[in-house]
Amino acid sequence: MKFASLKSASPDGRLVLVARDGATAVEAHGIAATLIDALERWEQLAPALQELYGLLNQGCAPGSFAFDPRNCAAPLPRSYQWCDASAFLNHGRLMERAFNTEPIPDFETIPVMYQGASDDFLGPHDDVALPDESQGIDFEGEFGVIVGHVPMGATAQAAQQQVRLLVQLNDWSLRKLGPREMATGFGFFQCKPSTSFAPLAITPDELGDRWSDGRVKLALAVRWNGAWFGHPNGAEMNYSFGELIAHAARTRRLSAGTVIGSGTVSNVDRGAGSACIAERRVIEIIDQGEARTGFMRFGDTVRMAAQDSQGNMPFGLIEQRVVAAVPAG
Amino acid sequence: MKFASLKSASPDGRLVLVARDGATAVEAHGIAATLIDALERWEQLAPALQELYGLLNQGCAPGSFAFDPRNCAAPLPRSYQWCDASAFLNHGRLMERAFNTEPIPDFETIPVMYQGASDDFLGPHDDVALPDESQGIDFEGEFGVIVGHVPMGATAQAAQQQVRLLVQLNDWSLRKLGPREMATGFGFFQCKPSTSFAPLAITPDELGDRWSDGRVKLALAVRWNGAWFGHPNGAEMNYSFGELIAHAARTRRLSAGTVIGSGTVSNVDRGAGSACIAERRVIEIIDQGEARTGFMRFGDTVRMAAQDSQGNMPFGLIEQRVVAAVPAG
Repeated sequence: MKFASLKSASPDGRLVLVARDGATAVEAHGIAATLIDALERWEQLAPALQELYGLLNQGCAPGSFAFDPRNCAAPLPRSYQWCDASAFLNHGRLMERAFNTEPIPDFETIPVMYQGASDDFLGPHDDVALPDESQGIDFEGEFGVIVGHVPMGATAQAAQQQVRLLVQLNDWSLRKLGPREMATGFGFFQCKPSTSFAPLAITPDELGDRWSDGRVKLALAVRWNGAWFGHPNGAEMNYSFGELIAHAARTRRLSAGTVIGSGTVSNVDRGAGSACIAERRVIEIIDQGEARTGFMRFGDTVRMAAQDSQGNMPFGLIEQRVVAAVPAG
Repeated sequence: MKFASLKSASPDGRLVLVARDGATAVEAHGIAATLIDALERWEQLAPALQELYGLLNQGCAPGSFAFDPRNCAAPLPRSYQWCDASAFLNHGRLMERAFNTEPIPDFETIPVMYQGASDDFLGPHDDVALPDESQGIDFEGEFGVIVGHVPMGATAQAAQQQVRLLVQLNDWSLRKLGPREMATGFGFFQCKPSTSFAPLAITPDELGDRWSDGRVKLALAVRWNGAWFGHPNGAEMNYSFGELIAHAARTRRLSAGTVIGSGTVSNVDRGAGSACIAERRVIEIIDQGEARTGFMRFGDTVRMAAQDSQGNMPFGLIEQRVVAAVPAG
């Protein structure tokens, strides 16, 4: 199944099912009020949702309409929890050089994960309003999962059974604010403005064998101001999503709707490019002695779409512009 | 006004108004479905809530009933955001010695704040289920505020105008997991299990002059297994709540219902005792050469109540027991 939330007066949006080909959609409101509601009552509601999805794909769903991703909020416009890992160790190792930080303890054996803000997710075509161009505006292309209820202490295997939906996201970062916040020990805060999501949250079966071993095995194509920036593949993730969920649930249960991110997709092969500017910059430092690429400027755009070998985009695409925030009155 | 959420089948609980004397309550469902709903539509709903609260205090509210805080969830049983500062610098300075960490950069001029988990807040009398007694189980007595919508870049003064409710909370911590997580730079995660709240979220006017300068100027009385542990006063907070909210909103807007915490209440006067075990331990190290107090054991209880000079408890009280979590199946 493919879910989207259309913008509406409700902060949770209008839940729709989107046909496999992305052309049409149908309201799911008669079954679940919101995507959070669907996740909380998944076992109960999934059969009816699946039936409606079947009708939609056959062109027989009453009330179906043309789907326009430009009307979409994030699939979950807000949630109760967002936890983001750094599960591509290649990226983390490069970033340690970028920030000139001490090696992260136990990096190869214990996932690193930060608690993110989940109260205000941005939609795939929303402008990204930020206060200051000098803060090192950067994108981070990632995959993520949305889970059902996960008990405290769940094993990685049990945790992975709670993956309900897969998502593709852009974890916006303000790089100049990061090192000071890391040095406090309290972790990322101001350096992580609102996160953006591709329009479609999809059940794992939609990917066929491109979802296996708890990984989204697709290339994430990233373009900055129209120019190729990278197409790293999610297959190289060093921890599975099951392992990441279990890490999050070690000392507390996770509520349905919790979003767990992979961290920036990153491949050892330099030819794959990067999914964030900071990584390209540190590669420039390594290869050329200095960073040559600047961060984003107001007016810049970024486009991100996971693509399969046929060029299909199972999550739809993120295409956003960075703009100057209007000063608070 | 005083709000509580009674436990119910809904994860958001049943919203009630509680009389000033704490004896009676009345359903607020006819006005606002949940406390989050009330916060999102505060300007619109506050007059009707205020009118009902007036009737309740006069003993004239239809359908009022005896209030039992043992039936309470947290005032917000879950929210979209929870941000916790460390705004009592005395505590932070002592903790640096406890963890033997580098001084926090800009500690005197920029608040430190971590993003906490808000998906599963615990009620004032809920057992606190934790997986492992050896992880350094500790309480942290704090004050907090719940805000309305805060725009990105709000000044401290404007931010403070968005304080809707005051709360008292226990930010449970697992001290043995903290240092490694601080060293990653990604911040607190597994060391912060679910946070607990006193039953009543109150409008600032309920405190009279005990709410001023953006601070809750009350002693927070803490008892561990029935024995006095401390009664530090919130007046010594080094940053105002307005400053803390503005810090949180520097690079993103905050949704209504965002909870901002003070960090452990801590006073320079040693006679005030402490609001967490870690602080007492480091004072023991300083005064006696070694930590003599252990952390909590399964079966231990902690009681926390802010008290005014007449012994009134405007937030009600937290009284909880730590228990071993049932292993995940």
